[in-house]
Amino acid sequence: MATDASFHVFDTTLRDGAQREGISFSVADKLAVARLLDEIGVGYIEGGWPGALPKDTEFFARARTELKLRHAVLVAFGSTRRAGVRVEDDPQVQALLDAETPVVCLVAKSDVRHVREALRTTLEENLAMVADTVAHLVAHGRRVFVDCEHFFDGYAADPDHGVAVLRAAFDAGAEVGVLCDTNGGMLPMGVGRVVADVRSRVDGRLGIHCQDDTGCAVANSLAAVEAGVTHVQGTANGYGERAGNADTFALVANLVTKMGLPVVPDGCLPELQRVSHAIAELANIAPDDHQPFVGASAFAHKAGLHASAIKVSPELYNHLDPAVVGNDMRILVTEMAGRASVELKGRELGVDLDGHGDVVGRVVDRVKVLEAEGWSFEAADASFELLLRAALPEAPPPLFELESYKTSVEHSRTGDVVSEATVKVHVDGERVISTAEGNGPVNALDNALRQALVSRHPRLADVSLADYKVRILGWKGGTGATTRVLVDTTDGVGEWTTVGVHANIVEASWHALVDALTYAVRHR
Amino acid sequence: MATDASFHVFDTTLRDGAQREGISFSVADKLAVARLLDEIGVGYIEGGWPGALPKDTEFFARARTELKLRHAVLVAFGSTRRAGVRVEDDPQVQALLDAETPVVCLVAKSDVRHVREALRTTLEENLAMVADTVAHLVAHGRRVFVDCEHFFDGYAADPDHGVAVLRAAFDAGAEVGVLCDTNGGMLPMGVGRVVADVRSRVDGRLGIHCQDDTGCAVANSLAAVEAGVTHVQGTANGYGERAGNADTFALVANLVTKMGLPVVPDGCLPELQRVSHAIAELANIAPDDHQPFVGASAFAHKAGLHASAIKVSPELYNHLDPAVVGNDMRILVTEMAGRASVELKGRELGVDLDGHGDVVGRVVDRVKVLEAEGWSFEAADASFELLLRAALPEAPPPLFELESYKTSVEHSRTGDVVSEATVKVHVDGERVISTAEGNGPVNALDNALRQALVSRHPRLADVSLADYKVRILGWKGGTGATTRVLVDTTDGVGEWTTVGVHANIVEASWHALVDALTYAVRHR
Repeated sequence: MATDASFHVFDTTLRDGAQREGISFSVADKLAVARLLDEIGVGYIEGGWPGALPKDTEFFARARTELKLRHAVLVAFGSTRRAGVRVEDDPQVQALLDAETPVVCLVAKSDVRHVREALRTTLEENLAMVADTVAHLVAHGRRVFVDCEHFFDGYAADPDHGVAVLRAAFDAGAEVGVLCDTNGGMLPMGVGRVVADVRSRVDGRLGIHCQDDTGCAVANSLAAVEAGVTHVQGTANGYGERAGNADTFALVANLVTKMGLPVVPDGCLPELQRVSHAIAELANIAPDDHQPFVGASAFAHKAGLHASAIKVSPELYNHLDPAVVGNDMRILVTEMAGRASVELKGRELGVDLDGHGDVVGRVVDRVKVLEAEGWSFEAADASFELLLRAALPEAPPPLFELESYKTSVEHSRTGDVVSEATVKVHVDGERVISTAEGNGPVNALDNALRQALVSRHPRLADVSLADYKVRILGWKGGTGATTRVLVDTTDGVGEWTTVGVHANIVEASWHALVDALTYAVRHR
Repeated sequence: MATDASFHVFDTTLRDGAQREGISFSVADKLAVARLLDEIGVGYIEGGWPGALPKDTEFFARARTELKLRHAVLVAFGSTRRAGVRVEDDPQVQALLDAETPVVCLVAKSDVRHVREALRTTLEENLAMVADTVAHLVAHGRRVFVDCEHFFDGYAADPDHGVAVLRAAFDAGAEVGVLCDTNGGMLPMGVGRVVADVRSRVDGRLGIHCQDDTGCAVANSLAAVEAGVTHVQGTANGYGERAGNADTFALVANLVTKMGLPVVPDGCLPELQRVSHAIAELANIAPDDHQPFVGASAFAHKAGLHASAIKVSPELYNHLDPAVVGNDMRILVTEMAGRASVELKGRELGVDLDGHGDVVGRVVDRVKVLEAEGWSFEAADASFELLLRAALPEAPPPLFELESYKTSVEHSRTGDVVSEATVKVHVDGERVISTAEGNGPVNALDNALRQALVSRHPRLADVSLADYKVRILGWKGGTGATTRVLVDTTDGVGEWTTVGVHANIVEASWHALVDALTYAVRHR
């Protein structure tokens, strides 16, 4: 449980993050997200806006009995009483109390132009709205934080009202005054200067909440910490409106590993990558492979350029040991593939290349030729592993011999669209003809081929396509371009990726499918 | 053309950005990217590493005759001479000269540990490598910039060698010494301190190159500018290894609109969004809707909350007028916005919707239904125009009635891969059966359909596919996802784009093809 002395890590995925276009958490999703955030040791989880959003009201009700948190406390978000209304008469404020959370976070206007033009009230009434609401909630036993909306823009227009709002909040018993860059237009140097100035004028714990409209949300937050803030707000994976919010995972990783501030309990940091991906799943948003710290490619190194050096001293090339945040280092095999890359990759894939220097040389040459034709193994580890193993002396024979295949799509007179495929293959000397349907020409081909092989290789019954990516390369007009297909296949336990390249999209897919099934039989 | 006095905006999409996992630019792509970067007024375009990468060698050769730049100059990248080798004997350095660019950018080690452990040489030899190579290139008439690799980590280990490298470079005639945060582990406050210190110890133009491993690349670059740097490096959309590089578009937008530095010529800033999206297309990477400044959602506000306030005073809610960077404000999820968009778009496409309020309403509803199914008209103006016109009272009948089609791909016993398609259509009451081949199932279908229609519509003889893009949406496991196909068609004079969506890739392509040919006949 966060104590008054500790640094506050405050996550608002479930309130501000949920504003992102396309996110729609169910109540069950929200409970799951809260548990995940707790696992990385955040101190505060802002769960939503009770009263204003029915799902949020329900979330807080269910959380009371269903949510057991180890590190975090739950926070209900809402606004100060409305202008001209008594706080005890304001149903929004009552809804905040009904949520029965230990902490309430109020949003207050701190920019004179917003007070006058949006709220249409006076500066004095605005201060009273803040003071009354804070005092009312404190009297009911709540810890109260106050988000000062549009603080930085307001500070530029009139530096005194924002400070007055902070003082009114603290005097009424608020625990934190959060400076919010609501429109997201700040840069870190400016944030540092404003925070230092406010720090010198106001006692009480200051917080920071940044949006990413200039691409500086994380940096702005860290600059604020250096200038005296001890409460940071973020969302998982930086989800939020417009360009999003400061990414909680980057904030935590930077504060701990770069600024030496132990803001989460021991043992929590290695959970970062797992939790980042799990929350992306719940939000139904593809994880960003290039996300700092937790992205799948965050520690992936390309190029024969320094593969030899990485083997010697990984710390010369990684700003951080990836294991600290639950990630790992990957070597990519690319156009710049040299012997060192191939050896390293082989080791990573569990292929023993010791004493096979000639094999390594042949593989390097083969990869360069294929890549010039459009093949790319960077994202297709399973195809690369098969290519490596096939170059070794004791390489096994292919899974089957192809005689022919045919796949078709028909849009009939009745309007039905049907795809069918027939494969003729030789499996262990036996000729097999297999026909199947599918929802596209490639899916039908995949079904037909698996059907042809499954009695000989029963484990293929659990194998299915998980994803299919098509890329048309170097279009050369009507004569056609090269098509590269990447296929993700799963057996319900793990996934592997294979690649195929050809002028004909179906033939390219065929290559990727054959690799996928061969890999399934030999290496899963 | 950039002069010595100006601020340098240096883009390395084609060299460092191309290191991103999954990017593979053809030479044609590289030329197209260079033209686009020129359109936003960058001063320097680092085109690649001649000698080391065959495609880059070819790029520089073709650029000499095929690339006409208005604002930028081309830069060739490479390394200093190898240790113990004379500069005039080093083929890598000769390759830099052979590229015949006005500017060369050299990468030099500036971290003592890298000099000793990775290069396995002495600090003195490292300084000689820098001086010799710079002097050699300057003597051959090149302007030389020097990237000081691992500068910040090196500075922490030994602040003197990095400074010595800078001095050696400047003394030998280099124009810029670029401080590179190669491992990406810096935060802005630290960058500012190091740059200020270096600025006080070294004369000569300093530059900054940041990687995004802590999520602070843009902020770090701006902090460096505030501390005295006058040359910033970035990549389009922040593409690059691991977590990527500083995003050139965010750098430029921040420098101009937040820091008051006119780093690109007038009229270039409004091209930012268009160029960002076009380069994403060339890289075959889906644009990031939440990217600062240029993302489709960067200025999108959820309605209801403050839609009325936004209409009154947009500057209270936007940190910047979106039009400055070629973007626009979107109000999400309101019927009013839907109608306004349709009317605006109709006007833009030359469709007169006056007095057809009911039509507008029906189109809005239809678009919402289609978009929920995966259709997107943002990039398919021709399909949208056909949809609009089809909703008007005097809408013409379809070009033909489809009876059926069939398309197949066969991989024969002899190893040939053949695609064939047959369409059965009714054209002006006459039944036509047409069969054609192609290099894929869709190309065959396109050839068969055009063949069926060309005698009735002779202008189709000049029409052909120019590009074909496939995106698989929302994969739901083996039951199949939705496929969205975008088809670019040309008549040799102009191009137009149409869209099709269906679970079956061929049926999706069919829709896009029919729209493409209908548009060709009616509106070209």
